[in-house]
Amino acid sequence: MKQKRTSGKARSKKASKMHRKIGKSPGTITYMGTRENAISSLDVIAYTEEDIQEYSPVNIEALLDKDDEHVQWINLVGLSDEAFITQLGKAFQLNPLVLEDAVHTTQRPKLDEYENYIFGVFKMLYLNQEQNVVVEHLAMALFEKKVLVFQELKDDVFDGVRHRIRTKTGRIRTKQADYLFFALLDAMVDNYFVVLEHINERIDLLEEEVYENPKPQTAHKIQELKKEVLRIRRYASPIKELVGRLIDTEHHFITKDTKLFLRDINDHCLEINESLQIYREMTMSLMEMYMSNVSNKMNEVMKVLTIMASIFIPLTFIAGVYGMNFENMPELQWRYGYYGILGVMLLILIFMLIYFKRRRWL
Amino acid sequence: MKQKRTSGKARSKKASKMHRKIGKSPGTITYMGTRENAISSLDVIAYTEEDIQEYSPVNIEALLDKDDEHVQWINLVGLSDEAFITQLGKAFQLNPLVLEDAVHTTQRPKLDEYENYIFGVFKMLYLNQEQNVVVEHLAMALFEKKVLVFQELKDDVFDGVRHRIRTKTGRIRTKQADYLFFALLDAMVDNYFVVLEHINERIDLLEEEVYENPKPQTAHKIQELKKEVLRIRRYASPIKELVGRLIDTEHHFITKDTKLFLRDINDHCLEINESLQIYREMTMSLMEMYMSNVSNKMNEVMKVLTIMASIFIPLTFIAGVYGMNFENMPELQWRYGYYGILGVMLLILIFMLIYFKRRRWL
Amino acid sequence: MKQKRTSGKARSKKASKMHRKIGKSPGTITYMGTRENAISSLDVIAYTEEDIQEYSPVNIEALLDKDDEHVQWINLVGLSDEAFITQLGKAFQLNPLVLEDAVHTTQRPKLDEYENYIFGVFKMLYLNQEQNVVVEHLAMALFEKKVLVFQELKDDVFDGVRHRIRTKTGRIRTKQADYLFFALLDAMVDNYFVVLEHINERIDLLEEEVYENPKPQTAHKIQELKKEVLRIRRYASPIKELVGRLIDTEHHFITKDTKLFLRDINDHCLEINESLQIYREMTMSLMEMYMSNVSNKMNEVMKVLTIMASIFIPLTFIAGVYGMNFENMPELQWRYGYYGILGVMLLILIFMLIYFKRRRWL
Amino acid sequence: MKQKRTSGKARSKKASKMHRKIGKSPGTITYMGTRENAISSLDVIAYTEEDIQEYSPVNIEALLDKDDEHVQWINLVGLSDEAFITQLGKAFQLNPLVLEDAVHTTQRPKLDEYENYIFGVFKMLYLNQEQNVVVEHLAMALFEKKVLVFQELKDDVFDGVRHRIRTKTGRIRTKQADYLFFALLDAMVDNYFVVLEHINERIDLLEEEVYENPKPQTAHKIQELKKEVLRIRRYASPIKELVGRLIDTEHHFITKDTKLFLRDINDHCLEINESLQIYREMTMSLMEMYMSNVSNKMNEVMKVLTIMASIFIPLTFIAGVYGMNFENMPELQWRYGYYGILGVMLLILIFMLIYFKRRRWL
Amino acid sequence: MKQKRTSGKARSKKASKMHRKIGKSPGTITYMGTRENAISSLDVIAYTEEDIQEYSPVNIEALLDKDDEHVQWINLVGLSDEAFITQLGKAFQLNPLVLEDAVHTTQRPKLDEYENYIFGVFKMLYLNQEQNVVVEHLAMALFEKKVLVFQELKDDVFDGVRHRIRTKTGRIRTKQADYLFFALLDAMVDNYFVVLEHINERIDLLEEEVYENPKPQTAHKIQELKKEVLRIRRYASPIKELVGRLIDTEHHFITKDTKLFLRDINDHCLEINESLQIYREMTMSLMEMYMSNVSNKMNEVMKVLTIMASIFIPLTFIAGVYGMNFENMPELQWRYGYYGILGVMLLILIFMLIYFKRRRWL
Repeated sequence: MKQKRTSGKARSKKASKMHRKIGKSPGTITYMGTRENAISSLDVIAYTEEDIQEYSPVNIEALLDKDDEHVQWINLVGLSDEAFITQLGKAFQLNPLVLEDAVHTTQRPKLDEYENYIFGVFKMLYLNQEQNVVVEHLAMALFEKKVLVFQELKDDVFDGVRHRIRTKTGRIRTKQADYLFFALLDAMVDNYFVVLEHINERIDLLEEEVYENPKPQTAHKIQELKKEVLRIRRYASPIKELVGRLIDTEHHFITKDTKLFLRDINDHCLEINESLQIYREMTMSLMEMYMSNVSNKMNEVMKVLTIMASIFIPLTFIAGVYGMNFENMPELQWRYGYYGILGVMLLILIFMLIYFKRRRWL
Repeated sequence: MKQKRTSGKARSKKASKMHRKIGKSPGTITYMGTRENAISSLDVIAYTEEDIQEYSPVNIEALLDKDDEHVQWINLVGLSDEAFITQLGKAFQLNPLVLEDAVHTTQRPKLDEYENYIFGVFKMLYLNQEQNVVVEHLAMALFEKKVLVFQELKDDVFDGVRHRIRTKTGRIRTKQADYLFFALLDAMVDNYFVVLEHINERIDLLEEEVYENPKPQTAHKIQELKKEVLRIRRYASPIKELVGRLIDTEHHFITKDTKLFLRDINDHCLEINESLQIYREMTMSLMEMYMSNVSNKMNEVMKVLTIMASIFIPLTFIAGVYGMNFENMPELQWRYGYYGILGVMLLILIFMLIYFKRRRWL
Repeated sequence: MKQKRTSGKARSKKASKMHRKIGKSPGTITYMGTRENAISSLDVIAYTEEDIQEYSPVNIEALLDKDDEHVQWINLVGLSDEAFITQLGKAFQLNPLVLEDAVHTTQRPKLDEYENYIFGVFKMLYLNQEQNVVVEHLAMALFEKKVLVFQELKDDVFDGVRHRIRTKTGRIRTKQADYLFFALLDAMVDNYFVVLEHINERIDLLEEEVYENPKPQTAHKIQELKKEVLRIRRYASPIKELVGRLIDTEHHFITKDTKLFLRDINDHCLEINESLQIYREMTMSLMEMYMSNVSNKMNEVMKVLTIMASIFIPLTFIAGVYGMNFENMPELQWRYGYYGILGVMLLILIFMLIYFKRRRWL
Repeated sequence: MKQKRTSGKARSKKASKMHRKIGKSPGTITYMGTRENAISSLDVIAYTEEDIQEYSPVNIEALLDKDDEHVQWINLVGLSDEAFITQLGKAFQLNPLVLEDAVHTTQRPKLDEYENYIFGVFKMLYLNQEQNVVVEHLAMALFEKKVLVFQELKDDVFDGVRHRIRTKTGRIRTKQADYLFFALLDAMVDNYFVVLEHINERIDLLEEEVYENPKPQTAHKIQELKKEVLRIRRYASPIKELVGRLIDTEHHFITKDTKLFLRDINDHCLEINESLQIYREMTMSLMEMYMSNVSNKMNEVMKVLTIMASIFIPLTFIAGVYGMNFENMPELQWRYGYYGILGVMLLILIFMLIYFKRRRWL
Repeated sequence: MKQKRTSGKARSKKASKMHRKIGKSPGTITYMGTRENAISSLDVIAYTEEDIQEYSPVNIEALLDKDDEHVQWINLVGLSDEAFITQLGKAFQLNPLVLEDAVHTTQRPKLDEYENYIFGVFKMLYLNQEQNVVVEHLAMALFEKKVLVFQELKDDVFDGVRHRIRTKTGRIRTKQADYLFFALLDAMVDNYFVVLEHINERIDLLEEEVYENPKPQTAHKIQELKKEVLRIRRYASPIKELVGRLIDTEHHFITKDTKLFLRDINDHCLEINESLQIYREMTMSLMEMYMSNVSNKMNEVMKVLTIMASIFIPLTFIAGVYGMNFENMPELQWRYGYYGILGVMLLILIFMLIYFKRRRWL
């Protein structure tokens, strides 16, 4: 119960954040999230096939002083320091609208091509330590030799990519910035599968609960799951189209080789969308099953009531008849009247049991 | 209950207004709304980067006497003064069909391009002081240096734009009429989010009501909410396509720069449509939950009945048996017969309780 | 109940009419309706800007003798006189397939362009005096200077157009036959709104009935309304596409000016389709509400039963116990035994009432 | 009940037939139906405008000996004689895949164009004498001067066409083979309307049954009807597209004139699809109504139970109280105690009746 | 119950396999299945029209030593030996991404064209000996003279093709590798029909169960079937599009002749998709029927209860009245009081029976 109310509040908080922006000029850089980090931290990994350097520049000038040989992955964590981000945007000559989208955490996934860079907004989905699905805003700008990443929180899904760069695993160190951009997208999409797996497990658990011990809360849980699937679909379904656009683009940054790899992500996105569609149908089936179980239980209850009442009400009536105080009731004087009437009652009982057996109620 | 009947009447009044027009020649200027203002009021804000003038022209000639240097926002409030509007239309050389749409408050959102102007019909949605959603008809014509706005009521969602013009905030004073047109659209779309937030809160409240204390009126409220979502979708969903057409247009009024901003509105419209879709699914889930709660409650009630009846009906039967008046009933003379039979009854009671415990009915 | 059965018969009669045509050669002119008028009546309105003539030609030759200066509206009422219609078709050089469609009242709306004329089939919808929705078959052929109208019944929705021609209201007298064709279409579409308004009112009434006093017949009425909406959608939804085709056509009859007006009809058709979609969803909501009300009522009934049974069955049991005839039942001799047991019963009653109060059943 | 099981078997027989083909080379001519005729019979109607000949050729050579002046309708009944059909196919230079489709009765409707012929597979639907819907496989190949028809059973829907050829009714004798092909298609589509009429009547009957006397079997019948509609839709819905392709084809066999007629069939197909869509929605409404009736009946039953129990259980309790055997029960000695208590019972009864009246349960 | 839990586990195992890949570089060859064979086995069938050779090469060099005259079907069973498959891929110059898809058993069906080969991933569906549907991953690469097949398990659906090659049945020995590729696809699609037949039979069985003896498990079985249909649709529905792409391709491997055959597969795929759609609707109908049966049963139960209670509760009340111990109850002394009251009870019984008969409850 609590979880729901919290999510309700989280949503309305998001909405009032949205509200705050009303009346502002378009292109204003306003962080819309609720996770305010006082300081944004900046980390750079610069590499060529032979060389790798990692450092955290103290200011933006230090960042721009780099030579052009290295592929640079500039990773910004924390989106609430608006002054710093404005400065960063100017240094990289980013359009103010682009910067606005980068920090606007309610922005849906999008992809825009500019002459000097390609800019995309995505959502990272991953499980935190409490096994809850975390949605983290992610914006990435691909330049000729640089990838600039804006992420909302310290946690991300890119440790595998960092590891491959550091250990020279796979092709990544021999490739350009577009491959790095692809590798980050790929890591993000791969993590969607982890989240789907988690959803799948929850469906399995709920399925068992529905079949074995459905409670009123079960319906609640099914509906919560349905909303979760809706929410994930909202973040995941636009990505397929965005990747499709990257494949069709004629932007000179994206090499033919990388497009082959993007086609692979495209396949994965298709699979994610299909899975989400199937999960949706499965939650609906669960709800149907739940309702059918509730009806079946009602039937059970009613059968017990009907059997008990149908057997004992007529018997009680008979007992009532011989409990009447009429003076002239000859049966009462019969020697075996009492035993006779007990016998009649027994016969009625047996008849009723046979009748209910026949109707398969027993 | 009352609210509903009122809305029913409001609708049928709207319908009979619609009726009034039957048989009239097309292009006849007839105000279709129910909010009749005796006088239409006209306000003008004219500005260049350096200069700003605000005045309410006494007549149309005064309006046209202006030089061409200033960007003019001509704002007409109140659509029922047909003579005045006809005159205004002639002064601006508007097509009669355009004027008809401008005052025809049941007109759905549309956008038409003419050689000298672009004309659009939209719906403003905002919350009034009683937190009800108000739908206000809005028509806007964009000329090279002017934006002519027709609005039904005094209230609107443009105070932020007015403030930005007056205080020179943002880019608006340095831009042309097309940017003003965009800024008004943007303000309108931003207010849709406020309305969505309000819907979202109502969904959250209803969700709590469904889970904690569902009453027959709850179903009623869910259905009302569903209709509200349907209604908002009707006004909001065409806007995306209209903005898309503005982006694709080759009309010389719309600069490339403004198109970049329009793409932003496009993104917002997409988000609005997605949210409405999700709200729709959520209201359906609410109704499902409500029905499942009603069934669960019925189950509860039936269980109580069945338990009470199943326990006491057999016991009453036994009491009935020993209330019979047969002369020959040896048990009645037994010394501890009464206590014995009380003991039997207790055993039956215990057996029944165990049985119901086992079936998890208790 | 009666209404339904009648409509059932009406449908099957229509179907057997359809049957009659099986085996006939395509292009055979067979009236498919059930409303047989012995005589078809022919009325002509011929007008220029200055002149207007109205007459009913005795034969077809009289009709063709007219000069080419006037715009002619030739209106045929009654489609069962096949010989006359064949003759008329020959006089106007209409394709036999066109004539077949003109009288084939089950024909769905369609539009075909030929070199010398444009031919369309539509359905007029209007309310008769009993406030029932009447569907009337309508076929119109647009020639360069003539509009030939085939209508099934005397009643139509064109009185407004006739009035405007006679009184020279609006532009109609200054325009050509294509504008007349448009004006007739416009009158037809405007009447759809009257029918929609009527549907809307019926939805409102049903809504009140569902909320305040749902009866088994209410469900029946909802389903009837749903079928009515389906039926209207069937006639209304193709018109949008047909008008769209008229707008895109390059046929020399249709002037650019008229196309502007047709765009207006197009908007109206869009609005009609949207309204029908919304009505459909509203009837579904009504049915949902009805079912939820039925469930709620069942809950009410069950609660009353459960409360009555749960209170009195245990009390009756106690009375039964002290009605037993055991010789050795010490309580029976107690002085205040009777009062004591009445007190116990009262306590049980109070306990039960508190219990039900707590569960909010009272 | 029986009907269902039979149809189940029919289906699984079809399926195992399908099974038989597994592992065979594609292009193998295997009859897939269950209606095995030992002999295929061959009938020819050859005609020009002046001349008509009908005969049953003894062998295929006799068939090919014909001059090229006549339009020939070669009609083959019975698809199980694989040797003969192979021979026929060779004589007409048909592709083996085409022959396979011609006898493969589970083949869905299709249309393929080859250089020398156009080949289509369709399904005839008609009512047999027991008013059941029969689905008969039909394949037709159109050559320049010939139409080769493969049909599964003796019965067909082409008697009207034969009659028109023999009696020179309509245009058919003056036209070429493509018109004959069209006329056969037209006859087939016209018969779909007869089947739809039959479905419509069954819906009407079921509607009455649902409203007046719903039984558990009614639900069964509704579901059977739904399946029937699904089945017909499966056969009917592809035809529209196939006819559309014939209209767009540039094959030299199909004259412009015939295309005009094909457009007519196209309209009919559209109407059939719309009707099927509406029937589908109507069967769903029927099921909804049925369920609502079941719920209403339950409500009725519950009300009777509740009224009876609520009235008599308290009264029985009172009688039980005065049936107790306490020695000290002063009321028992009162002179009018008995009448008093009867009066109290009457008051309770009246009170209860008023209460139930107020709640509109009576 | 067991089956479900197992499938649940199978799914989560699949998911955790998927998990294993997270963080790996794209293009890494990782077998994702759970069916690990220690050794992959390799079988080759090489044939020309005159000659056929079958052998199992010991190593890859032996495989490549072949002349170019023969069409070679190289069949690899078992996908877990990653080293061997990497080696094989290099020998055939396959792209690493292709190899990854070949062994990635959760990969959805896909088709990619490369300059030297066409590569496709599919799913074989067949019934195992326990009549369960087995889904087996299948990847095929078509080279100019070779078809390289990767299959997960020993079992496959290609025995018919092998038989036709060995016995020279049909055209296969006279054709090139593209025909072999088609023949394998065709065999796979043909087997889908066997699986559909099996689903159809299960639907028929469930239908009988629903109509004759619905149990709570029946709903469970219906939902399981629904999930099975969903699962098959997921594998079957992409194939149509892939085959469509093969038909449209201009790759020089695919001859015009083979495309004709592919069109045939296309038809089959359409039929499969339509069947699956119909099965889906049928499972939904089954669930509806099940729910309606549950409601009907409840109605039955309630009727029995109501009849029993309504008859005997009033009678018991009367008996209770004459069981009261008032001193002054004149009826008790009447000579035929007892018989009179028995008569009254009989009359009430008869009245009740007539009443219930009238309401058709009996």
